[in-house]
Amino acid sequence: MKLKKDERVDDLQFKDLKIIQNKNAFCFGIDAVLLSDFAKNVKNNSTVVDLCSGTGIVAILLEGKTKIKKIYAVEIQQEMAEMASRSVLLNHQEEKIEVINEDLKRIDTILKKDSVDAITVNPPYKKAGSGIINETDTKSISRHEVLCTLEDIIKVSARLLKTSGSIYMVHRTERLVDVLSEMRSEKIEPKRIRFIHPSYGKAPNLFLVEGIKHAKPFLKIEEPIYVYEKDENYTDTIKEIYHIDK
Amino acid sequence: MKLKKDERVDDLQFKDLKIIQNKNAFCFGIDAVLLSDFAKNVKNNSTVVDLCSGTGIVAILLEGKTKIKKIYAVEIQQEMAEMASRSVLLNHQEEKIEVINEDLKRIDTILKKDSVDAITVNPPYKKAGSGIINETDTKSISRHEVLCTLEDIIKVSARLLKTSGSIYMVHRTERLVDVLSEMRSEKIEPKRIRFIHPSYGKAPNLFLVEGIKHAKPFLKIEEPIYVYEKDENYTDTIKEIYHIDK
Repeated sequence: MKLKKDERVDDLQFKDLKIIQNKNAFCFGIDAVLLSDFAKNVKNNSTVVDLCSGTGIVAILLEGKTKIKKIYAVEIQQEMAEMASRSVLLNHQEEKIEVINEDLKRIDTILKKDSVDAITVNPPYKKAGSGIINETDTKSISRHEVLCTLEDIIKVSARLLKTSGSIYMVHRTERLVDVLSEMRSEKIEPKRIRFIHPSYGKAPNLFLVEGIKHAKPFLKIEEPIYVYEKDENYTDTIKEIYHIDK
Repeated sequence: MKLKKDERVDDLQFKDLKIIQNKNAFCFGIDAVLLSDFAKNVKNNSTVVDLCSGTGIVAILLEGKTKIKKIYAVEIQQEMAEMASRSVLLNHQEEKIEVINEDLKRIDTILKKDSVDAITVNPPYKKAGSGIINETDTKSISRHEVLCTLEDIIKVSARLLKTSGSIYMVHRTERLVDVLSEMRSEKIEPKRIRFIHPSYGKAPNLFLVEGIKHAKPFLKIEEPIYVYEKDENYTDTIKEIYHIDK
Protein backbone atom coordinates (compact mmCIF):
# COMPACT_ATOMS: atom_id res chain seq x y z
CA MET A 1 0.00 0.00 0.00
CA LYS A 2 1.39 3.38 -1.02
CA LEU A 3 1.26 6.23 1.48
CA LYS A 4 0.70 9.86 0.62
CA LYS A 5 2.91 12.71 1.78
CA ASP A 6 3.10 13.06 5.60
CA GLU A 7 1.21 9.82 6.18
CA ARG A 8 2.40 6.98 8.36
CA VAL A 9 1.08 3.55 9.34
CA ASP A 10 0.62 2.93 13.06
CA ASP A 11 0.34 -0.57 14.50
CA LEU A 12 -2.65 -0.82 16.89
CA GLN A 13 -0.96 -3.69 18.80
CA PHE A 14 -4.15 -5.71 18.58
CA LYS A 15 -5.00 -8.51 16.16
CA ASP A 16 -2.45 -7.05 13.74
CA LEU A 17 -4.72 -4.06 13.05
CA LYS A 18 -3.14 -0.94 11.61
CA ILE A 19 -4.20 2.62 10.91
CA ILE A 20 -3.02 5.24 8.45
CA GLN A 21 -2.65 8.69 9.94
CA ASN A 22 -1.36 11.99 8.62
CA LYS A 23 1.06 13.62 11.01
CA ASN A 24 -0.32 17.06 10.15
CA ALA A 25 -3.95 16.08 10.72
CA PHE A 26 -5.82 15.02 13.84
CA CYS A 27 -4.42 11.73 15.19
CA PHE A 28 -6.41 9.49 17.50
CA GLY A 29 -6.04 9.61 21.25
CA ILE A 30 -6.91 7.53 24.28
CA ASP A 31 -10.54 8.69 24.07
CA ALA A 32 -11.09 6.74 20.82
CA VAL A 33 -9.52 3.61 22.29
CA LEU A 34 -11.61 3.85 25.46
CA LEU A 35 -14.77 4.43 23.42
CA SER A 36 -14.24 1.30 21.33
CA ASP A 37 -13.76 -0.67 24.54
CA PHE A 38 -16.83 0.87 26.20
CA ALA A 39 -18.96 -0.04 23.15
CA LYS A 40 -17.79 -3.64 22.92
CA ASN A 41 -20.91 -4.99 24.68
CA VAL A 42 -22.78 -4.31 21.43
CA LYS A 43 -24.71 -7.44 20.36
CA ASN A 44 -23.43 -9.93 17.79
CA ASN A 45 -24.70 -9.35 14.28
CA SER A 46 -25.50 -5.67 14.96
CA THR A 47 -25.58 -2.90 12.41
CA VAL A 48 -23.48 -0.05 13.77
CA VAL A 49 -22.83 3.52 12.66
CA ASP A 50 -19.67 5.35 13.71
CA LEU A 51 -20.23 9.10 13.37
CA CYS A 52 -17.43 11.68 13.10
CA SER A 53 -15.30 8.70 12.16
CA GLY A 54 -12.12 10.58 11.19
CA THR A 55 -9.35 8.09 10.42
CA GLY A 56 -11.78 5.26 11.25
CA ILE A 57 -10.03 4.32 14.49
CA VAL A 58 -13.20 3.53 16.50
CA ALA A 59 -14.75 1.46 13.70
CA ILE A 60 -11.52 -0.47 13.10
CA LEU A 61 -10.99 -1.32 16.78
CA LEU A 62 -14.66 -2.12 17.41
CA GLU A 63 -14.77 -4.48 14.45
CA GLY A 64 -11.73 -6.23 15.89
CA LYS A 65 -13.31 -6.59 19.34
CA THR A 66 -16.83 -7.71 18.38
CA LYS A 67 -18.87 -9.90 16.04
CA ILE A 68 -20.97 -7.21 14.47
CA LYS A 69 -22.49 -7.48 11.01
CA LYS A 70 -21.58 -4.10 9.58
CA ILE A 71 -20.18 -0.74 10.59
CA TYR A 72 -20.85 2.36 8.55
CA ALA A 73 -18.08 4.84 9.27
CA VAL A 74 -19.40 8.32 8.46
CA GLU A 75 -16.87 11.09 7.89
CA ILE A 76 -17.51 14.48 6.28
CA GLN A 77 -13.90 15.36 5.40
CA GLN A 78 -12.98 13.82 2.08
CA GLU A 79 -9.30 13.31 2.80
CA MET A 80 -9.97 11.69 6.19
CA ALA A 81 -12.64 9.39 4.73
CA GLU A 82 -10.28 8.36 1.96
CA MET A 83 -7.52 7.61 4.46
CA ALA A 84 -9.99 5.56 6.57
CA SER A 85 -10.97 3.55 3.47
CA ARG A 86 -7.34 2.66 2.83
CA SER A 87 -6.89 1.57 6.48
CA VAL A 88 -9.93 -0.69 6.13
CA LEU A 89 -8.39 -2.31 3.03
CA LEU A 90 -5.04 -2.64 4.76
CA ASN A 91 -6.79 -4.54 7.61
CA HIS A 92 -8.94 -6.67 5.27
CA GLN A 93 -12.04 -5.29 7.00
CA GLU A 94 -13.82 -4.21 3.81
CA GLU A 95 -16.64 -6.72 4.22
CA LYS A 96 -17.43 -5.35 7.67
CA ILE A 97 -16.62 -1.63 7.49
CA GLU A 98 -18.00 0.73 4.87
CA VAL A 99 -16.70 4.28 4.93
CA ILE A 100 -19.28 6.88 3.91
CA ASN A 101 -17.95 10.31 2.99
CA GLU A 102 -21.03 12.37 3.81
CA ASP A 103 -22.31 15.08 6.11
CA LEU A 104 -23.99 13.28 9.02
CA LYS A 105 -26.86 15.75 8.83
CA ARG A 106 -27.71 14.19 5.46
CA ILE A 107 -27.01 10.58 6.45
CA ASP A 108 -30.66 9.62 6.46
CA THR A 109 -30.65 9.94 2.69
CA ILE A 110 -28.32 6.90 2.78
CA LEU A 111 -29.17 4.98 5.98
CA LYS A 112 -32.74 4.15 6.99
CA LYS A 113 -34.52 5.62 9.99
CA ASP A 114 -34.96 3.23 12.98
CA SER A 115 -32.58 0.72 11.39
CA VAL A 116 -29.41 0.90 13.46
CA ASP A 117 -28.57 -1.17 16.55
CA ALA A 118 -25.76 0.98 17.86
CA ILE A 119 -23.96 4.25 17.22
CA THR A 120 -20.47 5.20 18.33
CA VAL A 121 -19.23 8.77 18.25
CA ASN A 122 -16.13 10.63 19.37
CA PRO A 123 -17.36 14.11 18.43
CA PRO A 124 -15.54 17.42 18.16
CA TYR A 125 -15.33 18.54 21.78
CA LYS A 126 -15.32 22.30 21.62
CA LYS A 127 -18.24 24.55 20.91
CA ALA A 128 -18.13 26.43 17.63
CA GLY A 129 -16.57 29.81 18.21
CA SER A 130 -14.69 28.81 21.38
CA GLY A 131 -10.97 29.41 20.99
CA ILE A 132 -9.07 30.48 17.90
CA ILE A 133 -9.98 28.25 15.01
CA ASN A 134 -9.46 28.03 11.31
CA GLU A 135 -12.72 26.79 9.91
CA THR A 136 -11.19 25.06 6.91
CA ASP A 137 -8.35 23.38 8.77
CA THR A 138 -8.82 19.63 9.25
CA LYS A 139 -7.56 19.71 12.86
CA SER A 140 -10.03 22.46 13.74
CA ILE A 141 -12.88 20.51 12.15
CA SER A 142 -11.97 17.46 14.21
CA ARG A 143 -11.80 19.46 17.46
CA HIS A 144 -14.45 22.16 17.13
CA GLU A 145 -18.12 22.04 16.25
CA VAL A 146 -17.52 23.67 12.89
CA LEU A 147 -19.37 21.28 10.60
CA CYS A 148 -21.70 19.66 13.12
CA THR A 149 -22.83 20.31 16.68
CA LEU A 150 -23.61 17.98 19.56
CA GLU A 151 -27.29 18.66 18.90
CA ASP A 152 -26.92 17.53 15.27
CA ILE A 153 -25.23 14.31 16.36
CA ILE A 154 -27.85 13.41 18.93
CA LYS A 155 -30.78 14.31 16.69
CA VAL A 156 -29.38 12.20 13.84
CA SER A 157 -28.70 9.33 16.25
CA ALA A 158 -32.26 9.46 17.59
CA ARG A 159 -33.55 9.10 14.05
CA LEU A 160 -31.19 6.29 13.01
CA LEU A 161 -31.45 4.10 16.12
CA LYS A 162 -33.99 1.34 16.60
CA THR A 163 -35.96 1.42 19.85
CA SER A 164 -33.61 0.04 22.55
CA GLY A 165 -30.62 0.77 20.34
CA SER A 166 -27.58 2.36 22.03
CA ILE A 167 -25.42 5.37 21.37
CA TYR A 168 -21.91 5.21 22.86
CA MET A 169 -20.20 8.58 23.17
CA VAL A 170 -17.03 9.97 24.69
CA HIS A 171 -16.89 13.65 25.58
CA ARG A 172 -15.23 16.17 27.84
CA THR A 173 -16.67 16.58 31.33
CA GLU A 174 -17.33 20.29 30.76
CA ARG A 175 -20.02 19.21 28.26
CA LEU A 176 -21.70 16.63 30.55
CA VAL A 177 -24.87 18.69 31.06
CA ASP A 178 -25.14 19.37 27.32
CA VAL A 179 -24.82 15.67 26.47
CA LEU A 180 -27.24 14.37 29.11
CA SER A 181 -29.90 17.05 28.57
CA GLU A 182 -29.79 16.79 24.80
CA MET A 183 -30.02 12.98 24.89
CA ARG A 184 -33.02 13.05 27.17
CA SER A 185 -34.79 15.70 25.11
CA GLU A 186 -34.36 13.44 22.05
CA LYS A 187 -35.76 10.39 23.94
CA ILE A 188 -32.37 8.76 24.30
CA GLU A 189 -31.99 7.98 27.99
CA PRO A 190 -28.45 8.06 29.44
CA LYS A 191 -28.19 4.71 31.25
CA ARG A 192 -24.49 4.18 31.90
CA ILE A 193 -21.58 6.55 32.49
CA ARG A 194 -17.93 5.96 33.15
CA PHE A 195 -15.68 8.85 34.12
CA ILE A 196 -12.03 8.95 33.06
CA HIS A 197 -9.57 10.46 35.53
CA PRO A 198 -5.92 11.20 34.67
CA SER A 199 -5.05 9.55 37.99
CA TYR A 200 -6.31 8.76 41.49
CA GLY A 201 -7.58 11.87 43.28
CA LYS A 202 -7.68 14.00 40.11
CA ALA A 203 -10.92 15.34 38.66
CA PRO A 204 -12.21 13.44 35.63
CA ASN A 205 -11.62 15.19 32.29
CA LEU A 206 -13.52 12.80 30.01
CA PHE A 207 -16.55 10.57 30.27
CA LEU A 208 -18.06 7.67 28.39
CA VAL A 209 -21.84 7.48 28.17
CA GLU A 210 -24.27 4.91 26.79
CA GLY A 211 -27.73 6.23 25.97
CA ILE A 212 -30.58 3.91 25.01
CA LYS A 213 -33.44 5.00 22.76
CA HIS A 214 -36.82 5.04 24.52
CA ALA A 215 -35.42 3.52 27.75
CA LYS A 216 -36.69 4.40 31.23
CA PRO A 217 -34.65 6.78 33.41
CA PHE A 218 -32.18 5.14 35.79
CA LEU A 219 -28.51 5.91 35.50
CA LYS A 220 -25.69 3.62 36.54
CA ILE A 221 -22.34 5.28 37.05
CA GLU A 222 -19.68 2.61 36.79
CA GLU A 223 -16.25 2.35 38.36
CA PRO A 224 -13.98 5.17 37.27
CA ILE A 225 -11.11 4.66 34.86
CA TYR A 226 -7.79 6.02 36.11
CA VAL A 227 -5.29 6.42 33.28
CA TYR A 228 -2.00 6.74 35.16
CA GLU A 229 -0.61 5.36 38.38
CA LYS A 230 1.26 7.76 40.66
CA ASP A 231 4.52 6.60 39.05
CA GLU A 232 3.15 7.72 35.65
CA ASN A 233 2.83 4.18 34.34
CA TYR A 234 -0.51 3.16 32.89
CA THR A 235 -2.93 1.55 35.35
CA ASP A 236 -3.85 -2.11 34.88
CA THR A 237 -7.28 -1.07 33.53
CA ILE A 238 -5.63 0.89 30.76
CA LYS A 239 -3.09 -1.84 30.05
CA GLU A 240 -5.96 -4.29 29.62
CA ILE A 241 -7.82 -1.97 27.25
CA TYR A 242 -4.62 -1.37 25.27
CA HIS A 243 -3.70 -5.07 25.32
CA ILE A 244 -0.39 -4.31 26.99
CA ASP A 245 1.11 -7.09 29.16
CA LYS A 246 0.79 -6.26 32.87
CA MET B 1 -33.67 21.46 77.56
CA LYS B 2 -36.17 18.64 77.95
CA LEU B 3 -36.19 15.85 75.40
CA LYS B 4 -39.25 13.98 74.17
CA LYS B 5 -39.60 10.22 74.10
CA ASP B 6 -36.98 8.49 71.88
CA GLU B 7 -35.04 11.72 71.34
CA ARG B 8 -31.34 12.16 71.93
CA VAL B 9 -28.84 15.01 71.63
CA ASP B 10 -25.86 14.38 69.34
CA ASP B 11 -22.70 16.45 69.54
CA LEU B 12 -21.63 17.65 66.07
CA GLN B 13 -17.97 17.89 67.21
CA PHE B 14 -17.73 21.37 65.73
CA LYS B 15 -17.99 24.71 67.54
CA ASP B 16 -19.95 22.97 70.28
CA LEU B 17 -22.96 22.56 67.97
CA LYS B 18 -25.54 19.93 68.84
CA ILE B 19 -28.56 18.39 67.21
CA ILE B 20 -31.68 16.73 68.57
CA GLN B 21 -32.65 13.57 66.73
CA ASN B 22 -35.34 10.96 67.26
CA LYS B 23 -33.95 7.47 67.04
CA ASN B 24 -37.12 6.23 65.31
CA ALA B 25 -37.08 9.00 62.69
CA PHE B 26 -34.67 9.78 59.87
CA CYS B 27 -31.23 10.69 61.27
CA PHE B 28 -28.70 12.68 59.29
CA GLY B 29 -25.93 11.01 57.33
CA ILE B 30 -22.65 11.91 55.67
CA ASP B 31 -24.53 13.47 52.73
CA ALA B 32 -25.82 16.32 54.91
CA VAL B 33 -22.36 16.98 56.32
CA LEU B 34 -20.77 16.98 52.86
CA LEU B 35 -23.50 19.30 51.55
CA SER B 36 -22.91 21.88 54.28
CA ASP B 37 -19.20 21.77 53.46
CA PHE B 38 -19.81 22.05 49.69
CA ALA B 39 -22.03 25.11 50.25
CA LYS B 40 -19.61 26.95 52.52
CA ASN B 41 -18.36 29.21 49.69
CA VAL B 42 -21.66 31.09 50.01
CA LYS B 43 -21.02 34.82 50.34
CA ASN B 44 -20.97 36.65 53.66
CA ASN B 45 -24.23 38.32 54.58
CA SER B 46 -26.26 36.04 52.29
CA THR B 47 -29.88 35.09 52.73
CA VAL B 48 -30.10 31.32 52.45
CA VAL B 49 -32.99 28.85 52.30
CA ASP B 50 -32.50 25.22 53.33
CA LEU B 51 -35.25 23.11 51.77
CA CYS B 52 -36.30 19.65 53.06
CA SER B 53 -34.52 20.73 56.21
CA GLY B 54 -35.53 17.77 58.41
CA THR B 55 -33.76 18.03 61.77
CA GLY B 56 -32.06 21.22 60.55
CA ILE B 57 -28.63 19.61 60.25
CA VAL B 58 -27.54 21.42 57.06
CA ALA B 59 -28.71 24.83 58.31
CA ILE B 60 -27.05 24.34 61.70
CA LEU B 61 -23.68 23.28 60.25
CA LEU B 62 -23.74 25.91 57.48
CA GLU B 63 -24.44 28.66 59.98
CA GLY B 64 -21.45 27.45 61.97
CA LYS B 65 -19.13 27.46 58.93
CA THR B 66 -20.11 30.79 57.34
CA LYS B 67 -21.00 34.42 57.98
CA ILE B 68 -24.41 34.44 56.43
CA LYS B 69 -27.17 36.82 57.44
CA LYS B 70 -30.10 34.43 57.73
CA ILE B 71 -31.07 30.86 56.96
CA TYR B 72 -34.70 29.88 56.56
CA ALA B 73 -34.96 26.16 57.26
CA VAL B 74 -38.10 24.88 55.52
CA GLU B 75 -39.56 21.58 56.71
CA ILE B 76 -43.03 20.22 55.98
CA GLN B 77 -43.24 17.66 58.81
CA GLN B 78 -44.44 19.33 61.96
CA GLU B 79 -42.58 17.11 64.42
CA MET B 80 -39.28 17.43 62.52
CA ALA B 81 -39.63 21.23 62.25
CA GLU B 82 -40.35 21.44 65.95
CA MET B 83 -37.30 19.33 66.77
CA ALA B 84 -35.16 21.55 64.48
CA SER B 85 -36.42 24.67 66.30
CA ARG B 86 -35.33 23.24 69.63
CA SER B 87 -31.86 22.40 68.20
CA VAL B 88 -31.53 25.99 67.02
CA LEU B 89 -32.36 27.26 70.50
CA LEU B 90 -29.95 24.75 72.06
CA ASN B 91 -27.20 26.16 69.82
CA HIS B 92 -28.16 29.82 70.38
CA GLN B 93 -28.59 30.19 66.61
CA GLU B 94 -32.09 31.69 66.79
CA GLU B 95 -30.99 35.06 65.39
CA LYS B 96 -29.56 33.37 62.32
CA ILE B 97 -31.80 30.37 61.68
CA GLU B 98 -35.57 30.54 61.36
CA VAL B 99 -37.39 27.23 61.01
CA ILE B 100 -40.48 27.44 58.80
CA ASN B 101 -42.93 24.55 59.07
CA GLU B 102 -44.48 24.79 55.60
CA ASP B 103 -44.85 22.87 52.35
CA LEU B 104 -42.07 24.12 50.08
CA LYS B 105 -44.57 24.29 47.22
CA ARG B 106 -46.27 27.11 49.15
CA ILE B 107 -43.09 28.80 50.36
CA ASP B 108 -43.47 31.78 48.03
CA THR B 109 -46.42 32.90 50.13
CA ILE B 110 -43.81 33.51 52.86
CA LEU B 111 -40.51 34.21 51.05
CA LYS B 112 -40.22 36.67 48.15
CA LYS B 113 -39.48 35.70 44.57
CA ASP B 114 -35.92 36.53 43.37
CA SER B 115 -34.84 37.36 46.93
CA VAL B 116 -32.58 34.49 47.96
CA ASP B 117 -28.79 34.30 47.52
CA ALA B 118 -28.41 30.57 48.02
CA ILE B 119 -30.43 27.42 48.53
CA THR B 120 -29.26 24.17 50.09
CA VAL B 121 -31.20 20.95 49.76
CA ASN B 122 -30.72 17.31 50.71
CA PRO B 123 -33.93 16.02 49.11
CA PRO B 124 -35.71 12.68 49.41
CA TYR B 125 -33.70 10.48 47.05
CA LYS B 126 -36.17 7.93 45.78
CA LYS B 127 -38.92 8.47 43.27
CA ALA B 128 -42.46 8.28 44.60
CA GLY B 129 -43.73 4.75 44.19
CA SER B 130 -40.29 3.11 44.08
CA GLY B 131 -39.94 0.50 46.79
CA ILE B 132 -42.34 -0.32 49.60
CA ILE B 133 -43.28 2.81 51.46
CA ASN B 134 -45.67 3.96 54.09
CA GLU B 135 -46.81 7.40 52.99
CA THR B 136 -47.46 8.71 56.46
CA ASP B 137 -44.26 7.42 58.02
CA THR B 138 -41.70 10.13 58.74
CA LYS B 139 -38.78 7.99 57.53
CA SER B 140 -40.55 7.33 54.22
CA ILE B 141 -41.28 11.03 53.77
CA SER B 142 -37.61 11.83 54.32
CA ARG B 143 -36.45 9.19 51.82
CA HIS B 144 -39.12 9.08 49.11
CA GLU B 145 -40.69 11.79 47.00
CA VAL B 146 -44.01 11.49 48.82
CA LEU B 147 -44.68 15.14 49.66
CA CYS B 148 -42.47 16.81 47.07
CA THR B 149 -40.61 15.80 43.93
CA LEU B 150 -37.26 16.85 42.51
CA GLU B 151 -39.18 18.93 39.96
CA ASP B 152 -41.02 20.78 42.77
CA ILE B 153 -37.73 21.55 44.52
CA ILE B 154 -36.01 22.91 41.42
CA LYS B 155 -39.02 24.93 40.27
CA VAL B 156 -39.38 26.53 43.72
CA SER B 157 -35.63 27.22 43.82
CA ALA B 158 -35.73 28.87 40.41
CA ARG B 159 -38.44 31.21 41.68
CA LEU B 160 -36.77 32.05 45.00
CA LEU B 161 -33.20 32.61 43.78
CA LYS B 162 -31.82 35.94 42.64
CA THR B 163 -30.04 35.96 39.28
CA SER B 164 -26.57 34.47 39.90
CA GLY B 165 -27.82 32.87 43.12
CA SER B 166 -26.74 29.27 43.77
CA ILE B 167 -28.52 26.08 44.65
CA TYR B 168 -26.38 23.44 46.38
CA MET B 169 -27.78 19.93 46.25
CA VAL B 170 -26.68 16.42 47.17
CA HIS B 171 -28.30 13.47 45.42
CA ARG B 172 -27.78 9.87 44.41
CA THR B 173 -25.90 9.26 41.18
CA GLU B 174 -28.83 7.31 39.70
CA ARG B 175 -30.72 10.65 39.59
CA LEU B 176 -27.89 12.65 37.94
CA VAL B 177 -29.69 13.04 34.61
CA ASP B 178 -32.91 14.09 36.36
CA VAL B 179 -31.11 16.73 38.41
CA LEU B 180 -29.04 18.21 35.57
CA SER B 181 -31.85 18.23 33.00
CA GLU B 182 -34.40 19.69 35.38
CA MET B 183 -32.01 22.42 36.52
CA ARG B 184 -31.22 23.45 32.97
CA SER B 185 -34.86 23.46 31.96
CA GLU B 186 -35.56 25.85 34.87
CA LYS B 187 -32.66 28.15 33.82
CA ILE B 188 -30.42 27.04 36.67
CA GLU B 189 -27.15 26.01 35.05
CA PRO B 190 -25.18 23.22 36.75
CA LYS B 191 -21.68 24.72 37.09
CA ARG B 192 -19.86 22.54 39.60
CA ILE B 193 -20.11 18.85 40.52
CA ARG B 194 -18.24 16.73 43.01
CA PHE B 195 -18.74 12.96 43.04
CA ILE B 196 -18.56 10.99 46.28
CA HIS B 197 -17.03 7.51 46.07
CA PRO B 198 -17.12 5.02 48.98
CA SER B 199 -13.43 4.42 48.26
CA TYR B 200 -10.73 4.52 45.59
CA GLY B 201 -11.73 2.53 42.51
CA LYS B 202 -15.39 2.25 43.51
CA ALA B 203 -18.19 3.86 41.52
CA PRO B 204 -19.57 7.09 43.03
CA ASN B 205 -22.93 6.71 44.79
CA LEU B 206 -23.62 10.36 45.59
CA PHE B 207 -22.87 13.72 44.03
CA LEU B 208 -22.83 17.34 45.07
CA VAL B 209 -23.91 19.92 42.53
CA GLU B 210 -23.97 23.72 42.47
CA GLY B 211 -26.35 25.27 39.96
CA ILE B 212 -26.38 29.00 39.28
CA LYS B 213 -29.49 30.85 38.12
CA HIS B 214 -29.16 32.31 34.61
CA ALA B 215 -25.48 31.32 34.29
CA LYS B 216 -23.84 30.26 31.02
CA PRO B 217 -23.19 26.56 30.38
CA PHE B 218 -19.75 25.29 31.38
CA LEU B 219 -19.43 22.56 33.94
CA LYS B 220 -16.46 22.02 36.21
CA ILE B 221 -16.20 18.58 37.76
CA GLU B 222 -13.99 18.84 40.80
CA GLU B 223 -11.73 16.32 42.47
CA PRO B 224 -13.68 13.32 43.75
CA ILE B 225 -14.31 12.73 47.44
CA TYR B 226 -13.35 9.25 48.64
CA VAL B 227 -14.95 8.43 51.97
CA TYR B 228 -12.90 5.47 53.15
CA GLU B 229 -9.30 4.38 52.78
CA LYS B 230 -8.65 0.73 51.95
CA ASP B 231 -8.19 0.06 55.68
CA GLU B 232 -11.75 1.38 56.27
CA ASN B 233 -10.56 4.49 58.06
CA TYR B 234 -11.89 7.82 56.85
CA THR B 235 -9.75 9.56 54.23
CA ASP B 236 -8.05 12.84 55.15
CA THR B 237 -10.61 14.76 53.06
CA ILE B 238 -13.43 13.36 55.18
CA LYS B 239 -11.52 13.91 58.43
CA GLU B 240 -11.09 17.55 57.45
CA ILE B 241 -14.78 17.99 56.67
CA TYR B 242 -15.72 16.24 59.91
CA HIS B 243 -13.13 18.22 61.89
CA ILE B 244 -11.46 15.00 63.06
CA ASP B 245 -7.74 15.20 63.89
CA LYS B 246 -5.65 13.53 61.19
